[in-house]
Amino acid sequence: MVSLDTLRHSAAHVLAMAVQKHYSKATLGIGCPIENGFYHDFDGIKITEENLKAIESSMKHIIKQNLPFKKEIVSKQKARRMFKSEPYKLELIKELPGSTVTIYWTGKDFANLCKGPHVKSTGEIKAFKLLRVAGAYWKGSEKNKMLTRIYGAAFDSKNKLNEFLKTLAEAESRDHIKLGKKLGLFVTSEAVGKGLPLLTPKGATIKRELMRFIQDEEIRRGYQYTDTPVLTKTDLYKISGHLAHYRDSMFIFKIDKNTELALRPMTCPHQFMIYKAFPHSYRELPIRYAELANLFRKEQSGELHGLIRIWQFMLADAHIICEPDQLEAEFKGVVNLIQYVMKTLGFTDFWYRFSKWDPKRKDKYAGTPKQWTASQSAMKRILDSMKLKYVEATGEAAFYGPKLDIQMKNVYGKEDTLFTVQVDFSSAEKFDMEYVGKDGKKHRPLIIHRASIGCIERTMALLIEKYAGAFPTWLAPIQAKVLNFTDRNLRYAKKVEEALRSEGIRVEVDYEPNTIQKKVRNAELERVPYTLVVGDKEQKAGTVAVRTRGKKKIDFGVKLSTFVKHVKKEIESRSIRP
Amino acid sequence: MVSLDTLRHSAAHVLAMAVQKHYSKATLGIGCPIENGFYHDFDGIKITEENLKAIESSMKHIIKQNLPFKKEIVSKQKARRMFKSEPYKLELIKELPGSTVTIYWTGKDFANLCKGPHVKSTGEIKAFKLLRVAGAYWKGSEKNKMLTRIYGAAFDSKNKLNEFLKTLAEAESRDHIKLGKKLGLFVTSEAVGKGLPLLTPKGATIKRELMRFIQDEEIRRGYQYTDTPVLTKTDLYKISGHLAHYRDSMFIFKIDKNTELALRPMTCPHQFMIYKAFPHSYRELPIRYAELANLFRKEQSGELHGLIRIWQFMLADAHIICEPDQLEAEFKGVVNLIQYVMKTLGFTDFWYRFSKWDPKRKDKYAGTPKQWTASQSAMKRILDSMKLKYVEATGEAAFYGPKLDIQMKNVYGKEDTLFTVQVDFSSAEKFDMEYVGKDGKKHRPLIIHRASIGCIERTMALLIEKYAGAFPTWLAPIQAKVLNFTDRNLRYAKKVEEALRSEGIRVEVDYEPNTIQKKVRNAELERVPYTLVVGDKEQKAGTVAVRTRGKKKIDFGVKLSTFVKHVKKEIESRSIRP
Repeated sequence: MVSLDTLRHSAAHVLAMAVQKHYSKATLGIGCPIENGFYHDFDGIKITEENLKAIESSMKHIIKQNLPFKKEIVSKQKARRMFKSEPYKLELIKELPGSTVTIYWTGKDFANLCKGPHVKSTGEIKAFKLLRVAGAYWKGSEKNKMLTRIYGAAFDSKNKLNEFLKTLAEAESRDHIKLGKKLGLFVTSEAVGKGLPLLTPKGATIKRELMRFIQDEEIRRGYQYTDTPVLTKTDLYKISGHLAHYRDSMFIFKIDKNTELALRPMTCPHQFMIYKAFPHSYRELPIRYAELANLFRKEQSGELHGLIRIWQFMLADAHIICEPDQLEAEFKGVVNLIQYVMKTLGFTDFWYRFSKWDPKRKDKYAGTPKQWTASQSAMKRILDSMKLKYVEATGEAAFYGPKLDIQMKNVYGKEDTLFTVQVDFSSAEKFDMEYVGKDGKKHRPLIIHRASIGCIERTMALLIEKYAGAFPTWLAPIQAKVLNFTDRNLRYAKKVEEALRSEGIRVEVDYEPNTIQKKVRNAELERVPYTLVVGDKEQKAGTVAVRTRGKKKIDFGVKLSTFVKHVKKEIESRSIRP
Repeated sequence: MVSLDTLRHSAAHVLAMAVQKHYSKATLGIGCPIENGFYHDFDGIKITEENLKAIESSMKHIIKQNLPFKKEIVSKQKARRMFKSEPYKLELIKELPGSTVTIYWTGKDFANLCKGPHVKSTGEIKAFKLLRVAGAYWKGSEKNKMLTRIYGAAFDSKNKLNEFLKTLAEAESRDHIKLGKKLGLFVTSEAVGKGLPLLTPKGATIKRELMRFIQDEEIRRGYQYTDTPVLTKTDLYKISGHLAHYRDSMFIFKIDKNTELALRPMTCPHQFMIYKAFPHSYRELPIRYAELANLFRKEQSGELHGLIRIWQFMLADAHIICEPDQLEAEFKGVVNLIQYVMKTLGFTDFWYRFSKWDPKRKDKYAGTPKQWTASQSAMKRILDSMKLKYVEATGEAAFYGPKLDIQMKNVYGKEDTLFTVQVDFSSAEKFDMEYVGKDGKKHRPLIIHRASIGCIERTMALLIEKYAGAFPTWLAPIQAKVLNFTDRNLRYAKKVEEALRSEGIRVEVDYEPNTIQKKVRNAELERVPYTLVVGDKEQKAGTVAVRTRGKKKIDFGVKLSTFVKHVKKEIESRSIRP
């Protein structure tokens, strides 16, 4: 039986053949099987997804002809002649070892440079579909030319293909970029830059709710918020040693001969400078410095993506500075907070990855073996006692301490680390941080770097995808929409609006001159939690007709005060409703 | 009668003479009379304020001798010989026009290059005091060497001097940099950079309270908050035209051949990009986009000052996009908000400056004469009808519209603009911003740029100085301090702490092993609004003894719930108490 990889490899070959039939100027990059399908790169063509249908037809025609795949080993000299108008193939021929190369024929007119294997004949490709067009650098390097990449799905049965396409469509309908645009949550501007999305009032409302939620919750749990600048002299990152490692992914610039500035990629050294500005006693510890910190990372422009990979993002960051024997209690507190945050946001499908050192390579690590074993056992005790779902990863720790990653799958099924809790045996030394212990002597504290809700923008993206835009009421940009039946009810609609707004509920009236049916449909598309219809009857009785998102039944004759009470309770409790 | 300027000029001369007596290596820069006193610059000496007493004594000795000031006009050639070991004087001699220069002698050994006038003899200098030492660039240019500047006060009577010194001491005790350090509100770090203060948890609490206050208040008033990045391609400021004007005071850097980035100095173009991303109808207007925007200005390092002149600051910024005939209502709304904010913060000593165009130079301005006269009359109507204290400044408007400045004096009595409300006839055109009017046609909106609380850090500085650190309870970093009488009361103290914290009150227990007297004194120094003393009696009765800041009387036997209710009410109403 033929492997799926071989099948997909052959589909890529057929794609190349079809494209060159359609576009005589197309030259070939490389083609590959990938998860669920295949792709092939081309140069010299300008196509959009509109053109894929026609190419698909040509592929089907080639498949119907059931052309055999014929392997031939040719001298490089002959290959160079054969591919004389294919500059990328010529480059590959030059780079391949040996004096011969393998090519595959389908029919008499088309051959591709390829080491195979392939299916016997094109007829074996039973189920495929072209999906999308993207740009891709030749050999994946930004320094090279951008080629056109066509992606397709391919399976060994129509059923499997359809199943995949269904899952994909579901995921795409939740894609945060598509939904973000549809719901008007954020925009990008060519003049500002691709990696710098602008949150509209609706998107900014979600971010603000998340910021205040985490800030209030952390303050309640004994965190102290600092507020430090995003700009710093690079001197700061010389102390931490980051400059040597992260320079290429930092925004760095000189303002005069002696002053080099950076946009910070992390908050720790800023908070450490505050710690160092005052003397500290064991009585104050643990100190938990938190910050809603704007951070920067110079991602390559090809890697920028929606709200997930961006140049500027906000991390709900914190550093716990504690005595070594406080680690267990502090680690427990952190995990507790994370569990609470994930539950509040409605994330249930996540797990932990506990990254430990490799005890066979002790020389690789900062800190003493005693520190490592003590910390790791303390962490394991907490993970076990809290009965958390976690995997252990030996040898995956950072050189300066063990860590705990919070893992999740996105809507496309791809596993990703949401954020990390990192124990740090090294920074207190580097930054010369001290506290006076019970013994009256100076000691080095232990440091825990931790996030609790991750990068706010990224968490927003995950929430958009999880709820497909139908946010819980406390996060919804508009919580209630008032729809007036006729112009007669306009003043009453305004009165309802003002009453709700004065109670802190985010409300809008739909003033557009549309039918009530159309207004209800628009409110549904906007995924507003509560739609309040007001007609003559409601106006006379001082009530509203409440339509709750996702429910068919309309509650008629609801007193405004009753509705306000209900919604305020839902918002205050941050319920995952309606 | 001799003028104060002449008197102070002579005091500077005497200062130079005294310094050279003490420091044989001192060379002279220039000396000048200034408001309330004088200064003289020196090179080749290293002194601190500790050394001023000795210099002052020498000055007094010179004054006692009553040496006459003798004027002499000498040839430049002679002057060069006389000042051959004074490089700065030689430079001045070279630059002065003509072939002669004026010098003044006091005694036989000391002469200074100076065009005068001076008092008759040193004995006329009746009342002076040296104040401080600072660095100052030769000729005020960063490119030159930093000299040592000594400042002094001088008056024509002892009484006037004493009065001035008293006012100065009062102002200095309120100086936000001194108080900020004493109260632990912010720190600076050499490794981070001078213009980039780090707010400690205490300082960050004040900022957070101000941020939430203004954000909540503006949302209540129909502002919509955006959230946009601080980083942008400079392309954005090419559209606005800022790049050409502000380039030198912007942080700008290239990341590759084609991409130049800037840290934004203002929010407007970012918000305009959001406006432009959607079609707009007159029904939506006015749109009031607000943002707590981090902004950047590349101040020269010599100009950096505390929280007032810094490289990164947060402006509570907003842009109102409205129909031209909505200007009057919107302007009224803005002034209303400003009045409310200033009252809440307790600022009463402020006034408005209404900057209008110069109607004789119509060619200088953007917009039509009709726009100018209509807008200015609308603004004046509001200012008059609200009976505001304002001055008019003809010809002081920006080229793109009239404006209203909010003016205040700082603790040193210096007038300054706190922030500005600016009407803008130009940006809608530049950014091609439109809305569909009632007539179904496209129109340009009118734009109002406005702040309502100014730069948060600067407002913090003003609040520190106004309240001398004794903040109203809602702003106080610590609102209540619990002091246990003996170790026996520690558990009860903790219980009180937790009860208050769970109610959202910022509370601390003083755990230091000190006497209750010492603890009370420390709480006073911290300017904590409420001090709660708990001893055996309170513990038994479940009460607290409340000491309110600024009051002698202690309220004994206060029920905890009564105290909580009282303080929460004070916080929620943002009262300027206790």
